[in-house]
Amino acid sequence: MLTVAVLGGSGYTGAELLRLLAGRRDVRVACVTAGGSAGQRVDALYPDLAGRVDLVFEEFRPAAVEGVDVVFVALPSGGGMTVVPLLRERGLRVIDLGGDFRLPGVEEYRRYYRREHTAPELLGRAVYGLPEVNAERIAAAALVANPGCYPTSAILAILPALRHGLIEPEGIVVNSLSGISGAGRSSSVEMSFSELNENARAYRIGVHQHTPEIESALREGASRDVSVSFVPHLIPITRGIYTTVHARLAAEVSEAEAEEVYASYYRGKPFVRVTRQIPQILSVVRTNYCDVYVSVQPRTRHLIVVSVIDNLVKGAAGQALQNMNLMFGLPETEGLGAGRLTMDGGQ
Amino acid sequence: MLTVAVLGGSGYTGAELLRLLAGRRDVRVACVTAGGSAGQRVDALYPDLAGRVDLVFEEFRPAAVEGVDVVFVALPSGGGMTVVPLLRERGLRVIDLGGDFRLPGVEEYRRYYRREHTAPELLGRAVYGLPEVNAERIAAAALVANPGCYPTSAILAILPALRHGLIEPEGIVVNSLSGISGAGRSSSVEMSFSELNENARAYRIGVHQHTPEIESALREGASRDVSVSFVPHLIPITRGIYTTVHARLAAEVSEAEAEEVYASYYRGKPFVRVTRQIPQILSVVRTNYCDVYVSVQPRTRHLIVVSVIDNLVKGAAGQALQNMNLMFGLPETEGLGAGRLTMDGGQ
Amino acid sequence: MLTVAVLGGSGYTGAELLRLLAGRRDVRVACVTAGGSAGQRVDALYPDLAGRVDLVFEEFRPAAVEGVDVVFVALPSGGGMTVVPLLRERGLRVIDLGGDFRLPGVEEYRRYYRREHTAPELLGRAVYGLPEVNAERIAAAALVANPGCYPTSAILAILPALRHGLIEPEGIVVNSLSGISGAGRSSSVEMSFSELNENARAYRIGVHQHTPEIESALREGASRDVSVSFVPHLIPITRGIYTTVHARLAAEVSEAEAEEVYASYYRGKPFVRVTRQIPQILSVVRTNYCDVYVSVQPRTRHLIVVSVIDNLVKGAAGQALQNMNLMFGLPETEGLGAGRLTMDGGQ
Amino acid sequence: MLTVAVLGGSGYTGAELLRLLAGRRDVRVACVTAGGSAGQRVDALYPDLAGRVDLVFEEFRPAAVEGVDVVFVALPSGGGMTVVPLLRERGLRVIDLGGDFRLPGVEEYRRYYRREHTAPELLGRAVYGLPEVNAERIAAAALVANPGCYPTSAILAILPALRHGLIEPEGIVVNSLSGISGAGRSSSVEMSFSELNENARAYRIGVHQHTPEIESALREGASRDVSVSFVPHLIPITRGIYTTVHARLAAEVSEAEAEEVYASYYRGKPFVRVTRQIPQILSVVRTNYCDVYVSVQPRTRHLIVVSVIDNLVKGAAGQALQNMNLMFGLPETEGLGAGRLTMDGGQ
Repeated sequence: MLTVAVLGGSGYTGAELLRLLAGRRDVRVACVTAGGSAGQRVDALYPDLAGRVDLVFEEFRPAAVEGVDVVFVALPSGGGMTVVPLLRERGLRVIDLGGDFRLPGVEEYRRYYRREHTAPELLGRAVYGLPEVNAERIAAAALVANPGCYPTSAILAILPALRHGLIEPEGIVVNSLSGISGAGRSSSVEMSFSELNENARAYRIGVHQHTPEIESALREGASRDVSVSFVPHLIPITRGIYTTVHARLAAEVSEAEAEEVYASYYRGKPFVRVTRQIPQILSVVRTNYCDVYVSVQPRTRHLIVVSVIDNLVKGAAGQALQNMNLMFGLPETEGLGAGRLTMDGGQ
Repeated sequence: MLTVAVLGGSGYTGAELLRLLAGRRDVRVACVTAGGSAGQRVDALYPDLAGRVDLVFEEFRPAAVEGVDVVFVALPSGGGMTVVPLLRERGLRVIDLGGDFRLPGVEEYRRYYRREHTAPELLGRAVYGLPEVNAERIAAAALVANPGCYPTSAILAILPALRHGLIEPEGIVVNSLSGISGAGRSSSVEMSFSELNENARAYRIGVHQHTPEIESALREGASRDVSVSFVPHLIPITRGIYTTVHARLAAEVSEAEAEEVYASYYRGKPFVRVTRQIPQILSVVRTNYCDVYVSVQPRTRHLIVVSVIDNLVKGAAGQALQNMNLMFGLPETEGLGAGRLTMDGGQ
Repeated sequence: MLTVAVLGGSGYTGAELLRLLAGRRDVRVACVTAGGSAGQRVDALYPDLAGRVDLVFEEFRPAAVEGVDVVFVALPSGGGMTVVPLLRERGLRVIDLGGDFRLPGVEEYRRYYRREHTAPELLGRAVYGLPEVNAERIAAAALVANPGCYPTSAILAILPALRHGLIEPEGIVVNSLSGISGAGRSSSVEMSFSELNENARAYRIGVHQHTPEIESALREGASRDVSVSFVPHLIPITRGIYTTVHARLAAEVSEAEAEEVYASYYRGKPFVRVTRQIPQILSVVRTNYCDVYVSVQPRTRHLIVVSVIDNLVKGAAGQALQNMNLMFGLPETEGLGAGRLTMDGGQ
Repeated sequence: MLTVAVLGGSGYTGAELLRLLAGRRDVRVACVTAGGSAGQRVDALYPDLAGRVDLVFEEFRPAAVEGVDVVFVALPSGGGMTVVPLLRERGLRVIDLGGDFRLPGVEEYRRYYRREHTAPELLGRAVYGLPEVNAERIAAAALVANPGCYPTSAILAILPALRHGLIEPEGIVVNSLSGISGAGRSSSVEMSFSELNENARAYRIGVHQHTPEIESALREGASRDVSVSFVPHLIPITRGIYTTVHARLAAEVSEAEAEEVYASYYRGKPFVRVTRQIPQILSVVRTNYCDVYVSVQPRTRHLIVVSVIDNLVKGAAGQALQNMNLMFGLPETEGLGAGRLTMDGGQ
């Protein structure tokens, strides 16, 4: 039995974490905090959890996390760098689902998050929590920086080709479509139904904070410099990320060869499915899967790669549990719905 | 380990059944049939099941179901009355998710389904599979007629008040809104995205085949005659049924008293939640719950009851598994995601 | 050339009014006010109006409305009763799109709007602006209370049957589904996309302020007492009202007779179409039409009537322009898109 | 008064054409044909047109188009090249909304449309009907090839930069999102609501027939060779195209300079709005506008351009009417809703 704490449980990411944890018999929750909702039952905010989550939001008190096995931090960006040092001082292992520990340096943090980093000494020590890339380091980590939703889909789409030298590392184009839950539980006119329904729009062109996260993970994973032109879009669905990558081919390669590069990279990694059909979001909604598809375009000399995830699961809470599983020596798929129905019995 | 067969696995109901079964380690599938898709992998039709359901659709052969513990029949209406007699002759227990065995008599069947019933001898022997009403009879049943989606929501909304004499049994108004998946996997212009998006419409006013199903279950459950004015509507969501009932009060009753009638009727029934807030569909999507809310209107002397379910889960495949659990002495909630996260550990 | 002013132009109703007015060559706008947005261009808030509406929101100043032919008041409820007395003192004709002048008395206003009415002397003098019922009085009116969206659809559905004695006046059940734009331009979590998409929910059961509006208009229009059990629902579409009425038949009547009652009541009224198919919202979106369908149910002795409108057009801004046309002796359909394409030329 | 014929009026494009024509008093319709729906009223298929379009679908007979001013051909691709030669022989002017006359040569047609072209002699004589580029040639044209929806948005986004030498002509990346109505009135499972709602997916990667159309129009418009990597996606909205272009900068240029290139190119062109905010689909739905936005990215040396249109209006029927206006010397904006509301009166 693992004991966990959830800091910032009232947002969509925190709620998804509780939703997934409710399916596990091997986890108990020491506390779930939410500044603005302290004293309220979790199922008052999330009525779907009635009967499944019997917890009350609390204010954060250091004593309440004493001795837990792991703390999930699901605070808005800026919250992580305030609370994580306190948790690490107490020797607690931490999975931070926010953006504070994902970038390699304070300068990129300042430029893209537009504030000073207040815990720079922890920046270099956090492990980037993408299990398909960093499984071993995650297993041993004290502080895991759980990846952003766009970076999860973009890195899984690009890294195999980049490592294998199939594509030019400069000017990789990443177009992503996101469901609205990615914007969090929001009370702005911009996020209201009437403004987003039957609509689509790009946003933060050239300045989105996930750009340097994608680049630094690719740089580290492929040991070469890269640049990415990233444009995120909102589309009127609740969950899902659809990423379409265009990169210039660096070598002659057949579609079968390119596909084999991907299949071989993801062999044994239970949550990435390399598909022969163009992916769709419905295939991954409410699952921890990432579907990846690769297409060689000889005419334009482009490699096109498509990847899809559920932003709240593989893009946030599900990946956090996958990381927890690795950190505590559990099967990587535990509690993540990757059962298997066959003629010989579900497994 | 239970061994099951699924006849008609290529529709949305069959696929949902496989999706739910994939989460269980105590079930194996002997075969899944689908006339038109025989030879195709299940995950070719439903790519979300890749890696989770390793099965191929087959033609139906009696030999393939030999010795299974239970057969799920998820064929279009009319299919059940053809195949169920064969299965029953072989002594197999059956859960029929279609409409062929839900009505008490051949005349109502003829009028509402517009065809002759070809297995009338089984009509009287099927147990109506609404676990909150018929749990004991289901446990012993050889043939369970799994309720329709609208009837599940309507009966659970009306029965407590009707049994308790709170409402007049004549002229009960039932307005229901349904997600589009209720119409099944369809290739008609009417069910195309552009015709249903940003739209809503009533259909089959006064002639929907669920009308006599609702009435006969209420009649049996409350031992009195009833008449129901039922209007189903399609709204542009994929999953969910929203039912709003208006009935004339038969007695002076306070809201607290009415609520207590419902709370007491559903005590110990794990999948009905009597709520104090007006329900919403999102609270039950992808769950087996039915949320029920009751409101007394002294000014108009009406009782208004609202209920919500997921049409594919509590309204079809989830309820079928709940029935299977009862038939085989398993915990009623097994494999239906009613885990419980507390400070003392998920249960 | 008519000169108009729009007070409260920054909400969805005000913007729709400007959108419709932009299509007319016979109207100029003296001013459009919006407290919170004063100084901003209209097309900064509503980019679809770029190139079509060349106006800037202003603060309200009495001088700016001096001499206009008519003032449209599109303020939130409570705003009308503050500003309309000032306008009337200046002798200006007014169409109020809010709820302040729709109820017959201060008591109902206090109970349903939960505040005191501050201009009770004008309550009795306002003409209820439903052109299909009150055309003559509207033509002569100084102050028109433009109907609410739900009441427009409900009254047009019920009134012909009620006047003709087809139905019992007590306990008429009105279930309505509304698009989200009906809630206005909103910044609450409840109205955010992620909370409404793939969802549906009833709200304000038994206490919605449109209940007494429906009842009083029916009472006046049919000269008999009525009671209505009204339940509004939100569904995930932007525009549209779908109303389904159940009423007990007061007389034996055939469907053809009932239909003729409606057809005859609406003869010569260009914006009501009595249909033989069950209506759908898409048929009226962005138009000023109301489609009405009637069905006699002998088995349950109910009359079921369905009506649909676009809440922002026939339910608000379009109806306001229809009223303006009547007040100034223009063709009722002017600028409301009821052109007619035939083999003999559009008319 | 112009007299027109519409061949293939039962699809979404044909219906939109009738919807727009219904707003005009200067046009009459000699006939509207639809093979499969001959004998049915237009408003039986499109109930929103009841009261507005008083026409019956007919079989095509050459006599019925005798003497009309212009024939709109809204047949599926392949239909145009069959009927247009007949029409041209009779000396009729034609606007073809299908794809048969948009490509410069039979080889590209064969490769992308996968059939032989049967009227190659007309291929070279058709004028590509993009009014912002070819207004003068359109005015004099006998046969106008009305552009595809994706090409309209892509060409308007790329051409100014390409002509002005701002970008490299090779490897221009075009990612487009389309509403579902672009797929036409369809009865396939793939186009059903449940398969598209809450979903997104790319399709026809590298083989979409609009790729050579985009390239050939750019080549002609900028007098240089180009290559385009085009990926279309379906998103769950009914109307709209969202195009995001990434191109490598060929020169140092500031954002203001790039913007001025676009502003200057579109000066005096009433339906293109160069915007300073990132566009959104809602701004152009049900209008003939194209909004274009340009952003210079010095870090990655990319020019990013975003454009949006309504696929049924500027991407089809609206553009066809714009072409008709040019062909008959009418104001370009006639009947296309570009009225203008000001303090001096709508114009």
